[in-house]
Amino acid sequence: MLTLARATGQGTNLALVKRRRISTETIARLPLYLRCLNEINAGQLTCSSDELAAGVGVNAAQVRKDLSYFSPPGVRGVGYRVDALRDLLRTELGLTEKHRVAIAGVGNLGRAILLYPGCTDAGFDIVVAFDTDPLRIGATLNGIVVDDIANLERVVREKAVTIGIIATPAGAAQAVADRFVAAGVRSVLNFAPSVLKLRSDVQVRRVDLSTELQILSYHQGQLG
Amino acid sequence: MLTLARATGQGTNLALVKRRRISTETIARLPLYLRCLNEINAGQLTCSSDELAAGVGVNAAQVRKDLSYFSPPGVRGVGYRVDALRDLLRTELGLTEKHRVAIAGVGNLGRAILLYPGCTDAGFDIVVAFDTDPLRIGATLNGIVVDDIANLERVVREKAVTIGIIATPAGAAQAVADRFVAAGVRSVLNFAPSVLKLRSDVQVRRVDLSTELQILSYHQGQLG
Repeated sequence: MLTLARATGQGTNLALVKRRRISTETIARLPLYLRCLNEINAGQLTCSSDELAAGVGVNAAQVRKDLSYFSPPGVRGVGYRVDALRDLLRTELGLTEKHRVAIAGVGNLGRAILLYPGCTDAGFDIVVAFDTDPLRIGATLNGIVVDDIANLERVVREKAVTIGIIATPAGAAQAVADRFVAAGVRSVLNFAPSVLKLRSDVQVRRVDLSTELQILSYHQGQLG
Repeated sequence: MLTLARATGQGTNLALVKRRRISTETIARLPLYLRCLNEINAGQLTCSSDELAAGVGVNAAQVRKDLSYFSPPGVRGVGYRVDALRDLLRTELGLTEKHRVAIAGVGNLGRAILLYPGCTDAGFDIVVAFDTDPLRIGATLNGIVVDDIANLERVVREKAVTIGIIATPAGAAQAVADRFVAAGVRSVLNFAPSVLKLRSDVQVRRVDLSTELQILSYHQGQLG
């Protein structure tokens, strides 16, 4: 669980602060609700919690509970207002401005991430890629020129990168993450199979194939 | 939260059944504890909750709480017995026998998964890969010959696949998942950016880059 301090005022008016406890699972569903709303036809003005529930794979009560944290715009018995709820979720998710993303490592995984179309659609611009391999440095992938990782700190600062993606081998991940943080990055998405130790004000998300497979394996054991 | 019915007996002796409620976050940490234990030197017989906590990035109280569900072998004030805890976690995670994995889609992402070394190490054998592209069918990647996806049902049954990985474009993901399930697969790991609707006895885990980025973006908003 996360304890969040939210400013409801504008600018320096921080007089009104709400404290909310929102589970990490609720937060993980917000992008899924947003995706649902983005897929609704332009002519449809409202949507029900049942509709969102079907799109996200939870029940309608969970949808109402998740969204209740954010005072969603809607009319009881009619549903949520599609445009307003979409704007609200985009604001909550910090998607009203583009994020500038750097990726370290352009092996198979790094290339898959660079070529992934959903990334720019969702408001994330990959602005630079780094590698150590002279055969990869200078190559252009999806419009991005691969830079020498020796230049990481300078380029991350110059391009005002806010999110660093790590797609290096496990052995290099911690050192690269430390360099991202030293250059001012405060959010790291780690695809390498290693646990990063970073300052407590740095957000880290980890995506690891073998961990995901082991979680599936656990649940499979419960079925038998 | 998951409600789990566990048989503690052997064979058909199901007289003793414990019911446990274990959070999905605890389950997600079990593979991380196992990785820590695997990295401990062969000569070290016990390890403390502090040691596991440092490796996983939680505090020691969380480690003790997580492991308390599984009656871990250890001595108070000394620590957990490394070998016995490793065996226990491997059993709980269903890793005492190899899982047979099929992957659909061998674009950049599928290739990254096929070449990922942690997969076999963790007890998962990718035994077959499928694609629709005639230029990819017949190619060998990491020892696996890419098969025509038209053969999916037959090959999945022949090779006794238990886990299906979906690395197709979003538009193809549901149809491929349905075919995996029809062929007997009960665990699906979905890398395509779409929500799958499958029977309730099928476990689905979803890994989606843009969702992960949006979650990071949310937390970044809380820092400001």
